[in-house]
Amino acid sequence: MRKDKILLGHGSGGRLMHNLIKDLLLKKLDNLVLKELSDSAVINYKERLCFTTDSYVVNPLKFPGGDIGKLSVCGSINDLVMLGAKPEFLSLALIIEEGFEYRALENIIDSISLTARKNGVNFVTGDIKVVEKGACDKIFINTSGIGRIIKNKKLSVKNIAPQDKIIITGNIAQHGFAVLTKRKELDLGFNIKSDCAALTGLIIPVLKKTNAIKFMRDPTRGGIATTLNEIAEAARLGIIIEEKAIPISQKVRAASELLGIDPLYVANEGSALLVVSSKVAKKVVALLRRHPLGRNAKIIGEVVREPKGQVILNTVLGTQRIVDMLTNEPLPRIC
Amino acid sequence: MRKDKILLGHGSGGRLMHNLIKDLLLKKLDNLVLKELSDSAVINYKERLCFTTDSYVVNPLKFPGGDIGKLSVCGSINDLVMLGAKPEFLSLALIIEEGFEYRALENIIDSISLTARKNGVNFVTGDIKVVEKGACDKIFINTSGIGRIIKNKKLSVKNIAPQDKIIITGNIAQHGFAVLTKRKELDLGFNIKSDCAALTGLIIPVLKKTNAIKFMRDPTRGGIATTLNEIAEAARLGIIIEEKAIPISQKVRAASELLGIDPLYVANEGSALLVVSSKVAKKVVALLRRHPLGRNAKIIGEVVREPKGQVILNTVLGTQRIVDMLTNEPLPRIC
Repeated sequence: MRKDKILLGHGSGGRLMHNLIKDLLLKKLDNLVLKELSDSAVINYKERLCFTTDSYVVNPLKFPGGDIGKLSVCGSINDLVMLGAKPEFLSLALIIEEGFEYRALENIIDSISLTARKNGVNFVTGDIKVVEKGACDKIFINTSGIGRIIKNKKLSVKNIAPQDKIIITGNIAQHGFAVLTKRKELDLGFNIKSDCAALTGLIIPVLKKTNAIKFMRDPTRGGIATTLNEIAEAARLGIIIEEKAIPISQKVRAASELLGIDPLYVANEGSALLVVSSKVAKKVVALLRRHPLGRNAKIIGEVVREPKGQVILNTVLGTQRIVDMLTNEPLPRIC
Repeated sequence: MRKDKILLGHGSGGRLMHNLIKDLLLKKLDNLVLKELSDSAVINYKERLCFTTDSYVVNPLKFPGGDIGKLSVCGSINDLVMLGAKPEFLSLALIIEEGFEYRALENIIDSISLTARKNGVNFVTGDIKVVEKGACDKIFINTSGIGRIIKNKKLSVKNIAPQDKIIITGNIAQHGFAVLTKRKELDLGFNIKSDCAALTGLIIPVLKKTNAIKFMRDPTRGGIATTLNEIAEAARLGIIIEEKAIPISQKVRAASELLGIDPLYVANEGSALLVVSSKVAKKVVALLRRHPLGRNAKIIGEVVREPKGQVILNTVLGTQRIVDMLTNEPLPRIC
């Protein structure tokens, strides 16, 4: 890949973005916290804090199950929760295109406000920029967040070991398909609803009840395929996934067949991948299922010693295939 | 003003933006920390932290004295410093237009890296989004920051009292004119250099040496006129400024006359307004002048009991005029 232009794939969460981060950002902005390449940073003050940032450029601004406002709160909340932090404070930075409807902005702020209140986070600082018509597409939102780490035990890929189980907390690929079908105005004869949700209520209680969770990440851009690859690479272990175990709604299955898009690569915004020790995996699933967001939680695979850094899928047909990271962007601006 | 479209003025830092914040954001996202309407939030953990966010959409990306990279580090550093915090951790969120030159991105990251290292801050988390060609203008950068409050004494408009002195730490309006003349490719026969700089080294030592500083703010969008109005309104006191005392370079003076733009409304990116008790104001100026960024520091006015909430300028002609907030945006995307 020639390095002269930024491609859409550089923002896909997949291989190209990884290279951009490694080749440019890590090289130039190197420090120990950043090197962890997590979606959030853990900062050692007297209390351990977690710090995260995310920009939201989703198109369209509204989709079944959410809008850019809800997404921009849930997304940053989830990045904190994935590091075992209770989200507390958020910032809100708006970049708005001149001529954007005031009423539409109001609806977005309503959605932000509602989602924040529901999930016990406060917006404590913010910024507004307005750019000329044509200089941005309607509205972009950045939220950064601070949370308080609730456990001393550090969630880290270093804790992952062979035989650990992989849990997904909900049906996959709902968000990406919701945005895609809305954007393209595809008439599938049914609506797919995004899973867009804040995971605080699902995850934090389970984290408090057990020490079994070793690592968590929410499979957003690039889908579970990309996130599992990140985990396998970072842990220098393999991951085997059972296709038949992966929870997937009838609608997403139908849409993925109709459109020829592999749901393993499609974004989620309200599900998490958990790596847990095998002994208590079933107990963790049972705990997760008590919560409405976790009622489809399932063990979908396990960690193996070899092949290091790779993800293998046992298909429903009984074959095996290597599942690589997303390399090209099939669907930009899904978050 | 009809509330149906977002106007460029809604991002100007002036009256329209204030209304948008008051009418929409404060109403919907209300909490005690946000209500302070500072550029950063103070958070009471065991240690007091300061949290800030800012997006940078400057056009052009490079200007005499800086670029969007340097600006995006200095701007968020300064927001923290203004609350008496030592900046420590930053996040970096990039929104990049498809097709943007990789080399240009590299130059921006170099500039970010250099500025961060010079000023002792670390980037600990980040995000990249790439949008289709035409969906944003080249690159937008958000940096959020966390700093540690270095004093127990709270900097607050509540501390401001009549007779307090107003200090500006450097020549005004350099940044806005630098960006304007570069963007319009105006040939003034000379270059105006932005004052773009991180104020950590100038301000933090002075803050440690004296308790005289009651309040600080950096007069970015909307210039010193807008910031002084914010201070006067929040403190419910008046401010009188002496035009002849305001430090202004020959070049900025010439440009403002040629272009008919009042420098009081033009953005600064490396100067701060300080409100200090009158007894020690001269001492504070002397301390500031020891630092290269403070060598033009001057007392430019004082706080008075009446007229409450207003800023009065004693002109060089011996007349008085009311200086209002910026209401219209003469120059969008200066930061």
